[in-house]
Amino acid sequence: MIENTPYAELAIGQVAEYRKQVSEQDIVLFAIVSGDANPVHLDAGYASTTVFGERIAHGMLTGSLVSAALAMTLPGPGTIYLGQSLKFRRPVKINDTITVRLEVTAKSDAKRLVTLDCRVSNQAGETVASGTAEVIAPAEKLRVAAPALPRVTLG
Amino acid sequence: MIENTPYAELAIGQVAEYRKQVSEQDIVLFAIVSGDANPVHLDAGYASTTVFGERIAHGMLTGSLVSAALAMTLPGPGTIYLGQSLKFRRPVKINDTITVRLEVTAKSDAKRLVTLDCRVSNQAGETVASGTAEVIAPAEKLRVAAPALPRVTLG
Repeated sequence: MIENTPYAELAIGQVAEYRKQVSEQDIVLFAIVSGDANPVHLDAGYASTTVFGERIAHGMLTGSLVSAALAMTLPGPGTIYLGQSLKFRRPVKINDTITVRLEVTAKSDAKRLVTLDCRVSNQAGETVASGTAEVIAPAEKLRVAAPALPRVTLG
Repeated sequence: MIENTPYAELAIGQVAEYRKQVSEQDIVLFAIVSGDANPVHLDAGYASTTVFGERIAHGMLTGSLVSAALAMTLPGPGTIYLGQSLKFRRPVKINDTITVRLEVTAKSDAKRLVTLDCRVSNQAGETVASGTAEVIAPAEKLRVAAPALPRVTLG
């Protein structure tokens, strides 16, 4: 079950964290979903010739974790995503454990608009991305079942 | 093969388009990659009870298409992604064909910084998202092989 925090219960300064390890498979799946088959993400030999020295995750894969944090933790289900800004500050490597920290920084009652500061860090505590999210927070308390995700086989 | 447009060859006003149909499988894979298992994306019965009336793609799946457009078309391989802003304007539904239109709006020689306007539309010509990308364009012409992506089996 996933549960939200409706607009009325959100407080300025309220914080939530969301954590996920980025697997090699995640990077391949992100390439399939987006269509971005750049070899810096997929080909270890090519990536070793780049400034990064090894395969890196797509920058927007990190963005997808920010969006998941909003949808799964704060405000959670029923949130309507209006906008996002992101600065990509450091590469994310295979098997990095990424933490998204959200903090409510503004509320506007008329349309239940909420602004959240988003800071994304790796297991070394280094900031890999940061930005700001704009959402419409849900009016009502919701507790919904998260559907089970199927197993993926590649190749 | 994918080919880039190096910094020196980029012109203000230069445009590129990138197009992809968003499949039901893409939405499931995006849920797996991001960890966002909200039922509005995955459960048709639940989605029919929401303001959207049917399953919708994750907003940041649209963001992933913008990032793919930058990486695959303009400037293309070798681009370093610095930042992105996005406003999500309309939902993307299963089987929508999404077009990302990029336009170079600013260049700054010192660090090869390039700003691109990003406009994302569906097959009806409606804008589903818009925003601005900041990148470092590649210094050198590159033509690289896009690795073949594996086939995915779900379940």
